Amino acid sequence: MPVHVVHFEHQNERQWGVIRGERITPIPGTFASTGELIAGTRLDELAALPDGELALAEIKLLSPVTRNQQFVCQGANYRQHMIESGMDPDAKHFNMIFTKAQSCIVAADSELIKPRQVRFLDYEIELGLVLRREIAGKVTVTDATLHEFVAGVVIVNDYSARDIQIPQMQFYKGKSFRTFGPVGPFLCLLGPQDMGYLKQLQLRLTVNGEVRQNDSTANLVFGPAETLSELSGVQDFAAGDLIATGTPAGCALSIPSPTKQRIAALLPERVKWQAFMKVQAGRSQYLKAGDLVEASIRSSDGVIDLGVQRNRVVEYV
Amino acid sequence: MPVHVVHFEHQNERQWGVIRGERITPIPGTFASTGELIAGTRLDELAALPDGELALAEIKLLSPVTRNQQFVCQGANYRQHMIESGMDPDAKHFNMIFTKAQSCIVAADSELIKPRQVRFLDYEIELGLVLRREIAGKVTVTDATLHEFVAGVVIVNDYSARDIQIPQMQFYKGKSFRTFGPVGPFLCLLGPQDMGYLKQLQLRLTVNGEVRQNDSTANLVFGPAETLSELSGVQDFAAGDLIATGTPAGCALSIPSPTKQRIAALLPERVKWQAFMKVQAGRSQYLKAGDLVEASIRSSDGVIDLGVQRNRVVEYV
Repeated sequence: MPVHVVHFEHQNERQWGVIRGERITPIPGTFASTGELIAGTRLDELAALPDGELALAEIKLLSPVTRNQQFVCQGANYRQHMIESGMDPDAKHFNMIFTKAQSCIVAADSELIKPRQVRFLDYEIELGLVLRREIAGKVTVTDATLHEFVAGVVIVNDYSARDIQIPQMQFYKGKSFRTFGPVGPFLCLLGPQDMGYLKQLQLRLTVNGEVRQNDSTANLVFGPAETLSELSGVQDFAAGDLIATGTPAGCALSIPSPTKQRIAALLPERVKWQAFMKVQAGRSQYLKAGDLVEASIRSSDGVIDLGVQRNRVVEYV
Repeated sequence: MPVHVVHFEHQNERQWGVIRGERITPIPGTFASTGELIAGTRLDELAALPDGELALAEIKLLSPVTRNQQFVCQGANYRQHMIESGMDPDAKHFNMIFTKAQSCIVAADSELIKPRQVRFLDYEIELGLVLRREIAGKVTVTDATLHEFVAGVVIVNDYSARDIQIPQMQFYKGKSFRTFGPVGPFLCLLGPQDMGYLKQLQLRLTVNGEVRQNDSTANLVFGPAETLSELSGVQDFAAGDLIATGTPAGCALSIPSPTKQRIAALLPERVKWQAFMKVQAGRSQYLKAGDLVEASIRSSDGVIDLGVQRNRVVEYV
């Protein structure tokens, strides 16, 4: 049975709690990081905690993934998103991996700060996997053993400055600005029998109430088991590390068709990027100061409900 | 006056020391990370330590940058390397930033493990900057204030699996395999009056004794001050974090001319990458099991000498 956990500040102390409805039960113990929480608690004990003492309104929610954890991301990982980008999801050529700076991790309801120099600020709702244990060598993960490696799931919004990310080729900088990585509000811890839910979660993102992204994790191209199998052969992970699994179609970014991309490649770099910027400038979907982005992920039966992220876009001038 | 520091294991304990010639003086105190060492010591006190008690041969050197520190990298940042890649260094369109996984950080003399699936394993000698202090907001760094932000320098080898890095576009995975980031052997801590050396360090890399890379930091395109000014506006840093500043020309990787790249862009993806692989297969410079890569960075007057990295390429089958 899944247990929904929150990280919060109450009376100037950072604590962890189990949340049921609007009530929070503090988890006994001190855990300096997500990894410590996962290593130091058991799902059955958390599930057995009595009903909550604190009301959600009394506390200040923090990100359930702490900033000491790795923040690894997959790109172009939903079928429709790949098709729109001119790629063939069935070909599965490669699993695109990049990172975001840990300092962009903020609480789910944080303001999204639009840097002054950024013109094309975009949203990307993603399911985040939170790892259960250390990985220090190549392992083969299957759907049957996935619960040994994945402790739970969170909402991640992989906010992106498209005018930096795309022309500069490497995604890191344009995706790492402070506040560009809201995580939470809830970390849903899963037991072995809950892992099937990973393939049936509904992601939904609205801007000022208008639905922009709406897809199911059933349409993920590289799933958690094969992604962990591959990455374990590359790098180490710690308990509590975060893997954001990519975003569905519906972002503001307009990617030219493969044919247009081939023609654009013939142009001098400067002209090519001027054309790219001109196309983006015509996209009213890009975020502006004052916009409200709301993101939710849940299972249709309501057993898993990762809460709602609400980010108001602000620009300091 | 620069002070050269080592991180080492001796009698099953991890320690830090000042190295002069072949002799090491342990630094009093316990420092769990590079950041703690930098925050907890003063250059004049380290310089005043008496001459060494330990011989280099008695100890096992570790990376002077610990794995808890961020590992941020610049790409295409030497003039000749940019020109060969078809870019104009004087245009300075953007400062390319990516990361390597911290778990690839190893001691300077580690074996370089060639993963079985990697065909095109390449070397990249780089000057690594080690940060002095936390950065939690935008700062303007100039050559005159650089010493407030940079504590010292190390050798970094940014080993890269070109057959993964280049076709998969995002550099992270192909550059993050375990052992792909030797750091050290020496961390040279610099005082305010030493910062001029950052523009006059000679980088030299050989494979089996043959010189492959040989250039001066005088030819860096985006220097440390402007890079820190820009990145401070994006993300946070901690004392001890590592920024690898890019590699000079001379890698095994053969980058097609801009004209050829434009023509290749017209080809279907599969055909384009087959052609890329074919060109790389003709480059005998790629590393093979048994090869010895040696990398050194020093000033011509010998005041700064970051030591020599020696990595033997091994392949486990």
